[in-house]
Amino acid sequence: MSSEPNVETKVASPPARRQRVMSGMRVTGRLHIGHYWGALQNWVKLQDDYDCFFGAMDWHGMTTAYKAPKEIAPWTREMIAEFIAWGVDPNKSTIFIQSRVPEHVELFMIFANMVPMGWLERVNTWKDAIEEMKANDTHNLGRFMYPVLQAADIAMYRAQKVPVGADQISHLEISREIIRRFNHLYKAKLPEMEPLLTEIPLVPGLDGRKMSKSYGNSLYLTEDTEKDLRKKVNMMVTDPARVRREDPGEPTKCSVYGYHKLYSSAEDIPWVEHGCRTAGIGCGDCKARLAENIEKVSKGPREKKKELLNNPGLLDSIIDAGCEKARAEAQKTLQIVRSNMKW
Amino acid sequence: MSSEPNVETKVASPPARRQRVMSGMRVTGRLHIGHYWGALQNWVKLQDDYDCFFGAMDWHGMTTAYKAPKEIAPWTREMIAEFIAWGVDPNKSTIFIQSRVPEHVELFMIFANMVPMGWLERVNTWKDAIEEMKANDTHNLGRFMYPVLQAADIAMYRAQKVPVGADQISHLEISREIIRRFNHLYKAKLPEMEPLLTEIPLVPGLDGRKMSKSYGNSLYLTEDTEKDLRKKVNMMVTDPARVRREDPGEPTKCSVYGYHKLYSSAEDIPWVEHGCRTAGIGCGDCKARLAENIEKVSKGPREKKKELLNNPGLLDSIIDAGCEKARAEAQKTLQIVRSNMKW
Ligand code: SF4
Ligand code: SF4
Repeated sequence: MSSEPNVETKVASPPARRQRVMSGMRVTGRLHIGHYWGALQNWVKLQDDYDCFFGAMDWHGMTTAYKAPKEIAPWTREMIAEFIAWGVDPNKSTIFIQSRVPEHVELFMIFANMVPMGWLERVNTWKDAIEEMKANDTHNLGRFMYPVLQAADIAMYRAQKVPVGADQISHLEISREIIRRFNHLYKAKLPEMEPLLTEIPLVPGLDGRKMSKSYGNSLYLTEDTEKDLRKKVNMMVTDPARVRREDPGEPTKCSVYGYHKLYSSAEDIPWVEHGCRTAGIGCGDCKARLAENIEKVSKGPREKKKELLNNPGLLDSIIDAGCEKARAEAQKTLQIVRSNMKW
Repeated sequence: MSSEPNVETKVASPPARRQRVMSGMRVTGRLHIGHYWGALQNWVKLQDDYDCFFGAMDWHGMTTAYKAPKEIAPWTREMIAEFIAWGVDPNKSTIFIQSRVPEHVELFMIFANMVPMGWLERVNTWKDAIEEMKANDTHNLGRFMYPVLQAADIAMYRAQKVPVGADQISHLEISREIIRRFNHLYKAKLPEMEPLLTEIPLVPGLDGRKMSKSYGNSLYLTEDTEKDLRKKVNMMVTDPARVRREDPGEPTKCSVYGYHKLYSSAEDIPWVEHGCRTAGIGCGDCKARLAENIEKVSKGPREKKKELLNNPGLLDSIIDAGCEKARAEAQKTLQIVRSNMKW
């Protein structure tokens, strides 16, 4: 043998011993700014330090959208375009569509056979929503078994870390329990995914309630044009104590201020605080500045997304490449899993 | 255009408008004579009149065998060899392994999202077995969702008919309900599978109880050698009134006679009836003749099965071809299903 380094091995070896992150977004419609602050902005940061798998989870979307699945495919495509438009880099991260990696449902099936009913019956998001689900026809098997599919989603890529907000840590527990049971039964070593604690700012809807498609109180990430943004920001509820222009206000009681903290510069923030408290600025001025600042960061992604959607060949090739990469990894996991099980 | 017939279309068209049958056997271990009389003998008859899909259902086997999946793969192989040994013809029927057609779990997933929990909670085989399942650690999601996977198994091949015994007709009802719901939601036309009523002789175990691996009272289809057969038949319980050789007996009170009716010739049956009732023959004679007759029909299949297992290349190629054929059909169904759903 020659003493030259084995180039092939060098190329094939992973760039570093980076930990793997898996995170997914349920396909439910167009993305609003809550999706950005709750996930995307964090994904963009994570991709430099972790080997990231980011999924558009359409099977999960189907649990509620099963009566009108027609929307799911275009929403899924748009979602991926949105990921990329906001900075998730397909060259750094693996971006995939859940249903395009059929191994997810196979791994789900393996887990399903070893998950006691009691574990699922005890899940709070199930227990507490039974009446609501019955009312809107989603009290279905798909919704019940959701946590098992979710465990499979993460285990599929042998991810060590899952980014979650402080109040979601408990959601990960059942996934961890499932992995522990799998590892125990089959003397296996699937990584027990751990929460990657993430600060997730609270982004209320325009009316101060939870931002939700069904409330019609959302600011869409790119679907809202500059004009829409201005109009919607104008509709936002402000500090109720500030009735007239001359009344001073308290920014911390106003969601406009909350948005400023996310979108505005280090100069604008004190301008709002001082101007509001002294009635030096009106709510109209304050909102106009906010709309401007949101537009500043949204313009680029909005154009980038349009570009991608107008170039379906390019978008398809990005999606195909991501799904292929995800699939290769998923097949590897399934091989490991089957060899653990001696199946 | 030339006036010549379009040869390609002719070749691609199905041979006839035969109805399609789907039937599967859960992989739980070696086949005993109950499997033959309950299914196999009927499959062999059906394959001349129907377009048959016969499956070794290993995902279903996993619901109970999940703690020792190591056995599942060899059992599955043996099962297929057994099918063929007893006359299921891979040239007439499509013989497949469930887990080798991943579309089953995908179609399951689609159904799961539209199946109300109540439908599954009401299933008798679930409701009535809860305590037993809890005791043996199978009170799991996999067991609970079994009927939905079963509906997918049948719908996977757009089968119109499912062979069932009179007492199993109700088991098919939930599959039919699921198909109706699918068809209703998506204005689709998946065939609503119908029972193909089959006379299934009752085959009790050697001790008169239900034949079951766990009771150790089974006569294995091919795994029992001639010597095993003789020994096991000798152990069978007979008419308890026939204590001594000289006591006359009543064949209808004896499972040996029940077996004779399945295995023995038109000459042997009256010989048993008369001989037993007059004490003209002893139970030993009666059992010896039965063992002989079982051996007569088992010898060929036993050798055929051994031949197949000793020629793994051949068996593999049969399995591969069957799974490929099944998969092609399953993919077609999934395409139809997705186009129905506009997904
Ligand atoms: S000035 Fe701005 S922060 Fe103050 S109440 Fe009006 S909108 Fe809210
Ligand atoms: S003679 Fe045969 S049928 Fe009669 S009791 Fe004995 S074993 Fe049974």
